[in-house]
Amino acid sequence: MDKANLPEKTIERLSEYRRTLLNCLTRGKTHIYSHELAGLHNITAVQVRRDLMLIGYSSMKKKGYDAQELIKVIGDIIDHKVGLNVAVVGMGNLGRAITTYFNGKRPKLNIVAAFDVDPNKVNRVISGVNCYHMKELPDVIKRNDISIAIISSPPDTANQVAEQLVAAGIKGILNFTTIPLVVPENVYLEEYDMITSMEKVAYFVKQGYSR
Amino acid sequence: MDKANLPEKTIERLSEYRRTLLNCLTRGKTHIYSHELAGLHNITAVQVRRDLMLIGYSSMKKKGYDAQELIKVIGDIIDHKVGLNVAVVGMGNLGRAITTYFNGKRPKLNIVAAFDVDPNKVNRVISGVNCYHMKELPDVIKRNDISIAIISSPPDTANQVAEQLVAAGIKGILNFTTIPLVVPENVYLEEYDMITSMEKVAYFVKQGYSR
Repeated sequence: MDKANLPEKTIERLSEYRRTLLNCLTRGKTHIYSHELAGLHNITAVQVRRDLMLIGYSSMKKKGYDAQELIKVIGDIIDHKVGLNVAVVGMGNLGRAITTYFNGKRPKLNIVAAFDVDPNKVNRVISGVNCYHMKELPDVIKRNDISIAIISSPPDTANQVAEQLVAAGIKGILNFTTIPLVVPENVYLEEYDMITSMEKVAYFVKQGYSR
Repeated sequence: MDKANLPEKTIERLSEYRRTLLNCLTRGKTHIYSHELAGLHNITAVQVRRDLMLIGYSSMKKKGYDAQELIKVIGDIIDHKVGLNVAVVGMGNLGRAITTYFNGKRPKLNIVAAFDVDPNKVNRVISGVNCYHMKELPDVIKRNDISIAIISSPPDTANQVAEQLVAAGIKGILNFTTIPLVVPENVYLEEYDMITSMEKVAYFVKQGYSR
């Protein structure tokens, strides 16, 4: 398979493997076996090895994968070479939580601007990021070469916000509102709704779930 | 297929359909066609009809599905009859955002308690919910018949928190930390890591994504 076109689920898992490998290094663990990595992600060792083969990595030694090396290999595949800039639209509780949570965690992905319409937020630094008025959105996005946006605005504004972002040249959107968005086919959309995740958990609890 | 054992992805989509149907009703739209519902979720109409057939619903009329009726049918499948109680562990930015975002949105799922160790938070009402000290966790969970927990505590505490929750009888966990958790097989775990979602968006933006 062409490395340039990995399946979404593989990208998701590679990102998760890297997160786990970084945690291992923090704890002083330098090597990890495929079955250990698998156990930490509730999947099979075969799945782990298949994912790593897809990115051309198959050098598990006697003491397991070299965590540092594998982090680099995954980064070469999923990270942008010079980094991508990100904007957050909507600096309520959720927007602030996302910004705080996210910034500094990945050197190749930076939240460089925030937008809101609340006069108490506009022209201030919130969670370490400059907050601009929505009407400045097209300018700020172009000036800062921002290609990704996170939408955490009130649900009833979500579609209008998405339209403005697309018009301003945004190429990827992470939607945290409860409104499903419709975007042009050249814009990558990832929808995340906490309520859906909660309802899934509730359903399986109700059924007396067991693996 | 037994309605009691629907696939995870079907449950996810049913939850999303309901969200969309509720939005339709809010806007005064009482009926919706399968192709409209499909378009709003970037899937095929065949997929929508298949999901609804799985729950024994196939009564699309000339003017489309009756939104109110379909909301009820989906609720009968995915909601708990008397409701489930939820706790949030970790009332930083993220825990507060989740609590504010979530409460009141679903009558059958209620956040009834929060936990933290910060003396400035313990024994206060935060985002409308009583915040208790972690050492009270087993008692509060039993007393309030809480079966689901959201973990939004600092990453390095996540596994310890999960262990305490499982010991207290929690049956479902929604993990918002960056640490993958390991739980017993009778506990349903949904992991959500914002960084993974962002890295997915970034990867497809980098590749010049187009559907």
